[in-house]
Amino acid sequence: MNSYGTLFKISTFGESHGPAIGVIIDGCPAGLQIDEVFIQSELSRRKPGQSKITTQRKEDDTFKILSGVFEGQSTGAPIALVIENQDQRSKDYSHIQNTFRPSHADYTYETKYGVRDYRGGGRSSARETAARVASGAIAKLLLKKSGIDINAFVSQVGDVKSPPYTQLDLSKTEDNIVRCPDSATAEKMIALIDQVRLDRDTIGGVVTCVIKNSPVGLGEPVFDKLHAELGKAMLSINAVKGFEYGSGFAGVALRGSQHNDEFVNEGGRIRTKTNHSGGIQGGISNGEDIYFNVAFKPVATIMQDQQSVDKEGNETTVSGKGRHDPCVVPRAVPIVEAMAALVMVDFLMRDKVAKLS
Amino acid sequence: MNSYGTLFKISTFGESHGPAIGVIIDGCPAGLQIDEVFIQSELSRRKPGQSKITTQRKEDDTFKILSGVFEGQSTGAPIALVIENQDQRSKDYSHIQNTFRPSHADYTYETKYGVRDYRGGGRSSARETAARVASGAIAKLLLKKSGIDINAFVSQVGDVKSPPYTQLDLSKTEDNIVRCPDSATAEKMIALIDQVRLDRDTIGGVVTCVIKNSPVGLGEPVFDKLHAELGKAMLSINAVKGFEYGSGFAGVALRGSQHNDEFVNEGGRIRTKTNHSGGIQGGISNGEDIYFNVAFKPVATIMQDQQSVDKEGNETTVSGKGRHDPCVVPRAVPIVEAMAALVMVDFLMRDKVAKLS
Amino acid sequence: MNSYGTLFKISTFGESHGPAIGVIIDGCPAGLQIDEVFIQSELSRRKPGQSKITTQRKEDDTFKILSGVFEGQSTGAPIALVIENQDQRSKDYSHIQNTFRPSHADYTYETKYGVRDYRGGGRSSARETAARVASGAIAKLLLKKSGIDINAFVSQVGDVKSPPYTQLDLSKTEDNIVRCPDSATAEKMIALIDQVRLDRDTIGGVVTCVIKNSPVGLGEPVFDKLHAELGKAMLSINAVKGFEYGSGFAGVALRGSQHNDEFVNEGGRIRTKTNHSGGIQGGISNGEDIYFNVAFKPVATIMQDQQSVDKEGNETTVSGKGRHDPCVVPRAVPIVEAMAALVMVDFLMRDKVAKLS
Amino acid sequence: MNSYGTLFKISTFGESHGPAIGVIIDGCPAGLQIDEVFIQSELSRRKPGQSKITTQRKEDDTFKILSGVFEGQSTGAPIALVIENQDQRSKDYSHIQNTFRPSHADYTYETKYGVRDYRGGGRSSARETAARVASGAIAKLLLKKSGIDINAFVSQVGDVKSPPYTQLDLSKTEDNIVRCPDSATAEKMIALIDQVRLDRDTIGGVVTCVIKNSPVGLGEPVFDKLHAELGKAMLSINAVKGFEYGSGFAGVALRGSQHNDEFVNEGGRIRTKTNHSGGIQGGISNGEDIYFNVAFKPVATIMQDQQSVDKEGNETTVSGKGRHDPCVVPRAVPIVEAMAALVMVDFLMRDKVAKLS
Repeated sequence: MNSYGTLFKISTFGESHGPAIGVIIDGCPAGLQIDEVFIQSELSRRKPGQSKITTQRKEDDTFKILSGVFEGQSTGAPIALVIENQDQRSKDYSHIQNTFRPSHADYTYETKYGVRDYRGGGRSSARETAARVASGAIAKLLLKKSGIDINAFVSQVGDVKSPPYTQLDLSKTEDNIVRCPDSATAEKMIALIDQVRLDRDTIGGVVTCVIKNSPVGLGEPVFDKLHAELGKAMLSINAVKGFEYGSGFAGVALRGSQHNDEFVNEGGRIRTKTNHSGGIQGGISNGEDIYFNVAFKPVATIMQDQQSVDKEGNETTVSGKGRHDPCVVPRAVPIVEAMAALVMVDFLMRDKVAKLS
Repeated sequence: MNSYGTLFKISTFGESHGPAIGVIIDGCPAGLQIDEVFIQSELSRRKPGQSKITTQRKEDDTFKILSGVFEGQSTGAPIALVIENQDQRSKDYSHIQNTFRPSHADYTYETKYGVRDYRGGGRSSARETAARVASGAIAKLLLKKSGIDINAFVSQVGDVKSPPYTQLDLSKTEDNIVRCPDSATAEKMIALIDQVRLDRDTIGGVVTCVIKNSPVGLGEPVFDKLHAELGKAMLSINAVKGFEYGSGFAGVALRGSQHNDEFVNEGGRIRTKTNHSGGIQGGISNGEDIYFNVAFKPVATIMQDQQSVDKEGNETTVSGKGRHDPCVVPRAVPIVEAMAALVMVDFLMRDKVAKLS
Repeated sequence: MNSYGTLFKISTFGESHGPAIGVIIDGCPAGLQIDEVFIQSELSRRKPGQSKITTQRKEDDTFKILSGVFEGQSTGAPIALVIENQDQRSKDYSHIQNTFRPSHADYTYETKYGVRDYRGGGRSSARETAARVASGAIAKLLLKKSGIDINAFVSQVGDVKSPPYTQLDLSKTEDNIVRCPDSATAEKMIALIDQVRLDRDTIGGVVTCVIKNSPVGLGEPVFDKLHAELGKAMLSINAVKGFEYGSGFAGVALRGSQHNDEFVNEGGRIRTKTNHSGGIQGGISNGEDIYFNVAFKPVATIMQDQQSVDKEGNETTVSGKGRHDPCVVPRAVPIVEAMAALVMVDFLMRDKVAKLS
Repeated sequence: MNSYGTLFKISTFGESHGPAIGVIIDGCPAGLQIDEVFIQSELSRRKPGQSKITTQRKEDDTFKILSGVFEGQSTGAPIALVIENQDQRSKDYSHIQNTFRPSHADYTYETKYGVRDYRGGGRSSARETAARVASGAIAKLLLKKSGIDINAFVSQVGDVKSPPYTQLDLSKTEDNIVRCPDSATAEKMIALIDQVRLDRDTIGGVVTCVIKNSPVGLGEPVFDKLHAELGKAMLSINAVKGFEYGSGFAGVALRGSQHNDEFVNEGGRIRTKTNHSGGIQGGISNGEDIYFNVAFKPVATIMQDQQSVDKEGNETTVSGKGRHDPCVVPRAVPIVEAMAALVMVDFLMRDKVAKLS
């Protein structure tokens, strides 16, 4: 359904052009200071219109908390958070009302439900991710208390790739509009996105996420392995096509003798010499950096004529209208971080009952 | 925890060297003929000792149904299925009782739980997947009634790759011991695995899975997208490091104008001209082939000395003993199919309440 | 947590004196006409200030739908429904800010969470049930399509009892302000409540609920028996102390030969001669009337001084202030119906996957 | 489905006359000493044939643990526990194969599932409760560590009632075969059951349960109130018709000024002067005794001819055969305790994440 999480659980609602989107966060422990300035700053990292390489559509994405917070503190009651849609003016939707846009969810929704809110993609719009970012911000506030730090950045746009994360200074991610901490790569990425936009086209990319300072022991052994939940969380983000952690797909070509991470005693703390495991062994964090890649396809809406069919099955032509992102990854960075934070908080809480204390 | 699925739900139990492993299947609709011969044949595709390129350890993996089936038919009650462990003779485990094997779950389990069944990896052993294969076989029996067909095969071992699935005859997968339907590639894969085994080493691989004849409409829009659940299901299998569907990581480098799947009317049925979407749009099946890749790392147990530490933090050396798989992917094929079947059955059932009928 | 239901799932939020209360309904099938006039009429049956025997506090309880409905129809997306709190003016709460009101949730919340929204009871206020009534109204719209009819009424106030439901005309429940379909009993109940109010006291009561025209087969065999879910749903309503169905506690004194409901063939339909089973056998509906009683304690807030302690443990005195219900059952009738409707819809949907079709 | 609990979760399986019944316990914290002698003793309190007032059928109900326990300790992995059915010899079931026994689940199962394991009631048999008692025993082992003590006893058989629990010495419950701690009442109860048995009839009863030494704070505010879960757990037991806690149905006739439990400071600990609340306020434990009553109907199987219909709708006659309980409550005592233990453990674990620590 529309919920995510076991103990720290979010339920999102809302359509792109309805009155509002929002989220209920159920399970936030009582006693947390809810820093609204921080929540807003996270939403602003995701909002449209933030730079020349994102859509020029304007939504301020200001939020209101309706419940669960009293005198600035979480009370243990569900936190309802609402973001009103400003940009819901009546538009001409005749081009998509009866026509299925290629590689969008129009056709599958129409068939599954027999009814479809076609305005701006309705429930299938990536606008829903604003609710994730807001709740992810609250998750981050909890993680700060455990010292866990989550940093995502753009590691690839088209075929322009950054160096591996271990060679980067992740504090520089916000220094440029594409959110790649390597400035030379960032320039190339921005130039590529600019060119793609001029071509009235779109392009894909990769977001890499690094989680530092995780305690040992997060994740559940069998179906709810830490990386399985991270994978599901990432794959649930609009436009994501793939997920890999640690050595990932490249690890396939290695031999066990190359791939295994030998243990060492580093000043009393058990560490691994290498980290092909991506900080996760047997589905459970081992204290090393958790890192993973998330592949995003090129945005489906392009400013070009494409072949399609309408609801009656007649062949027709459809083209994007309005203001769309030529590349989704710069705005996807806070979304990836938010989903990672939700996964980590949930496992932190689940771990509290793993053994007798 | 140890359950998977929403309406068709499995809960597995058991350790590698305990008395038995097994599964409860809760939610299997009443009235299904339970074909025990088919279940056994699926288990035999996974069992150890089946060929020269798998571990030579012998387990027959015969199962017994304890409940939920009456006169050959499912009754709607939970189906409990047990596989006794034959190979649980007392062994010398001193090499792993107090030592953490590199890239195994020993260290993380010990830290998380404070206690660990070290015999053969205990709960973290891939032996648990036999329970998945058995329940996946029952899921397949249900899928047959809907015409849905699931075929996995080995598409890569080390750097030896098969042609794409559209160029293969998937009915030939079982024709060779490595389970690659392209015989020329299969020979190279087998030779590589043989060499790796002689080197007392291991190697990774990729399993590709193709789901044909899915109806339109399976999957849920937001967090439980069809590919997000497939991703979680695959990433929950031991040794998996990555998942991609449709164009996957390669799709990142494409432009929207190349990547979008245009719609056509093919004799009254809405189809797409290409299938970069991998049969899934907006998280919901569109009726085209669903296909995805699953990356497996090299098996962690190698017959070589590796550096490690013991429970007290002392540095030490550990080496694999006994009979282990040099490459896991041939035996992973039925596991991937089983998990895919569980996902598909669950979404088929969930779809029955999506709209008023 | 704050959710109820399996396939038709509601999640409520909001405090008595926060900005708003509300609910997300996840799992409502697409294609349902959402009759907002009906939803409002149900809310008006529950709202305060509706008659002289309820609290004179005024809340209009008008609602707004934020999502999940398009052109009057459910779309399959979550339906978010919000009711703004009008009566949240700044008040003097000094009498309860630091003091625990007897038989309220003040002490237990404070201890459990370490923080408490004391204004009007915060999350523990019965105001939360407005969100249940609104979502129950949507459940009723679904039930109407199956012909299932739910009727609750007040069967007892203090020691004034109505005749059994089989002797009553349930269409007359709304004919008087106490919601007892027997007018003679209703008059006595109203007189009793009036007297209790003048005494600055409160009194308890019983709501009886009758569900007619249920199909055979709703409910799940073991833990989720139909009456077990009905029981939980009722016991989750504020001030409820007991639940019994069919013969209930009185059935204890009967012998099996008196209590058993013999089967007969009534014109081709299998019926029972008696209905001590309350329409449920083995946890599953048998097509007869489902009926049950729900016991409500006297309202805890009384206009009298009572002994108590404050947060520091000092003994003190506390008295109710403002406008409160002298007896909760007249307004509880729509709440009981709403919860019953939620249970029945959920089981209707779950039953769709019970057997192969 | 067939699972109960949120963090400490049991899933039962098995039919009355299949090969075995059993349970998986998922979520038991690691590090618990699993006292198998205690588990067996609990099972023996429930087993048939234990005294002259229970069924004379013999089942030893010996269990075997298949997983999750290593060297006597829970490991955090699921604990699978199996009880083989000894009494599954081929019998003559022709009298129930095609006929629906009055007030049994035969008719509702047949209609819901279209197939039915009619042998001994199949899945609807109270034999399933052995799996609950076994897992409840493990829950009790956990509760002992928190000092929580659960005591159930028979407080009513037919119209023979014991004094209220506050006047009884609950350590005497096991002193007689009817499990009523008041010996004078016990004698009357035993005499009544004996008479009923001679009449080839059955009779109902009430089990009262008292939970002492609960910490303050267990239970969740809205839908998962402590008493709502206790109610559901009890109502899920075979033959239960009602549940009330604290003042229960009798509290309805009281006034608020009589019913409210005033707070006092008792040597530094906050207590209530009375306990009409039954130890629960706002759905959360307040540290006082939690007590509740569970009503059981007379056993449906009687040794007398009763009117019924067969599967084709023909009217017919059916009579009980074999050995059945004339009154279920003596054997229900450990079942009520087991379900109460499961509820309390689950809330204890859930409470660990209620606030920041």
